[in-house]
Amino acid sequence: MGGSTGYAIGIDVGGTSIKLGLVCCDEWNITARTVIHGKDYETPDAFLTSIPAAIEKVCAEAHVRREQVLGIGIGLPGCVDSLRGIVKDITNLPNWRGEFTIKKALESLLGIPTYIDNDVNLMSIAELVRGAGNGCRNMLCVTLGTGVGGAIIIDGKLYRGSTLSAGEIGHITLFKDGEPCNCGNWGCLERYVGNAAIVNRTVRAISESSLKKDILMKSIHNDLSRLTPKIICGAAYDGDELSQHIWEETGSYIGIVFAAMVNVLNPDKIVVGGGVAQCGNMLFKAIRKTINERAMPVPAERVELVPAVLGADAGIYGSAIYSVKTEFHEEIG
Amino acid sequence: MGGSTGYAIGIDVGGTSIKLGLVCCDEWNITARTVIHGKDYETPDAFLTSIPAAIEKVCAEAHVRREQVLGIGIGLPGCVDSLRGIVKDITNLPNWRGEFTIKKALESLLGIPTYIDNDVNLMSIAELVRGAGNGCRNMLCVTLGTGVGGAIIIDGKLYRGSTLSAGEIGHITLFKDGEPCNCGNWGCLERYVGNAAIVNRTVRAISESSLKKDILMKSIHNDLSRLTPKIICGAAYDGDELSQHIWEETGSYIGIVFAAMVNVLNPDKIVVGGGVAQCGNMLFKAIRKTINERAMPVPAERVELVPAVLGADAGIYGSAIYSVKTEFHEEIG
Repeated sequence: MGGSTGYAIGIDVGGTSIKLGLVCCDEWNITARTVIHGKDYETPDAFLTSIPAAIEKVCAEAHVRREQVLGIGIGLPGCVDSLRGIVKDITNLPNWRGEFTIKKALESLLGIPTYIDNDVNLMSIAELVRGAGNGCRNMLCVTLGTGVGGAIIIDGKLYRGSTLSAGEIGHITLFKDGEPCNCGNWGCLERYVGNAAIVNRTVRAISESSLKKDILMKSIHNDLSRLTPKIICGAAYDGDELSQHIWEETGSYIGIVFAAMVNVLNPDKIVVGGGVAQCGNMLFKAIRKTINERAMPVPAERVELVPAVLGADAGIYGSAIYSVKTEFHEEIG
Repeated sequence: MGGSTGYAIGIDVGGTSIKLGLVCCDEWNITARTVIHGKDYETPDAFLTSIPAAIEKVCAEAHVRREQVLGIGIGLPGCVDSLRGIVKDITNLPNWRGEFTIKKALESLLGIPTYIDNDVNLMSIAELVRGAGNGCRNMLCVTLGTGVGGAIIIDGKLYRGSTLSAGEIGHITLFKDGEPCNCGNWGCLERYVGNAAIVNRTVRAISESSLKKDILMKSIHNDLSRLTPKIICGAAYDGDELSQHIWEETGSYIGIVFAAMVNVLNPDKIVVGGGVAQCGNMLFKAIRKTINERAMPVPAERVELVPAVLGADAGIYGSAIYSVKTEFHEEIG
């Protein structure tokens, strides 16, 4: 290592651990990495102690000098002001409440330009630059998991919107008079295709549907509390009819909202990641079918629906890339 | 006039007439204007004869020299390839079928740079530059009439999408198992709030609803064939309960889709024009109520919902501005 190569630090803050990587700016590969455990960042002070030490560690391991580190990027699972570099609220880090001026604090500690954003925005940057969205001009990036998140790439740049909150596709109304959602709306997409919703729909179908469900019931030993999207997915691939129905329905729900996004955003690609997306082809086929049935023909034909490829490292890549590629930095409008 | 002031020609092609204006580039005001009637442009050849003559006429009237005309913009109510300047299909001009290379043809006739786009895109440019959207960075522009059209301004520029078809909000699914639409989907917004749909919903409500409808029935002399959105609107303002209900319902349907757009696009403003928007405050209040109820709080608080202000001249302004302001010209991606 060494020489004049530039590096960036990517920091992916999760609810229970932080993944930190030293990323080489030539090829955007992770050169060294470490993990910081929950108790070492449960307060902003602890975070500001742990991060410099972890950066020291990965640089030493890779024989990279501090001057070669051109930027630090931080992805956070919550509400952040990316423009001013302030963390507003991270549900899973209650001790961070209040306005944590994370950018300023780290910059004065380390003297390295620091940028923050939410995790879905950074995943979209990672997939755009070195993942499934490579070469795209216009792209929608979606995570399907506990919630449904989205980020929009327009003309090769992250589009954040007028209050930095663009891309919230999870709270689009799917059913006008549907179930109430935490966001205050009813019938949001997330209420039907989030992790918990998939399980709940399956529980209901088990008691109401006449479709065959032996494979599924065997795999959970008849114990409904064992149901997870992963198990329902496994049963579907093993031929369980009820489970297959659940995924077709899930795909059709997601497809209705994706078709709307195809009509409105007319993207080259929709990149889909997150735990629920692990269901793979069965889910993607159902989404694709609905897009083809419902979206306008020309944009529907153009759009590619592809799985995200960077998995658990998307956060490290995205935050590192974001910290040094200025086209992703927002301007005050 | 005369001197060194620059001018642009704005051409708004409608189904039954063309409005053409000479627009001053300093203040974007219409200096002179003329109308071309249907038979004088029913074929591409007729169009290519009429337009140069009309330009000659407005320039002469305003004492503007040909060299002062810096650009020609043309707005068309249908499917156009704005990138290559080709008209693909205009439903109301059947003799234009085939690929009419309108940009090339006019440029070689007149030697003036010529640009084309669809009418909703050009309306959005007009409202952005000298209308209700002035000063916006991110904006959604919507026309409510026979159909429901949309155009998106991102970062002060028209966003056209990867196949130049972005902004099609009229064919977003409102009701999953709703009425079939010409576009191939079912339950599209347009099937519930387009002109014909508003009338149909009113006819149904007249036979099914117990709301008071005397004022409405009197205004159509009990003849349902006289129903139009305008009449239903007049009755609503006169206190007719059934008509008021129709507009509240119309606003809630539009509001569901606007709330989705607020979540995804996070715009500064939504500018709404077209015949149905003439219903004014009663409709706007119902839309606003639904946005507030359904969209995420931060982007909902930011977005302003405002009526378009340029009315029937939006097409002339938009096409003229488009022809000379390069930030609105698309690039090959």
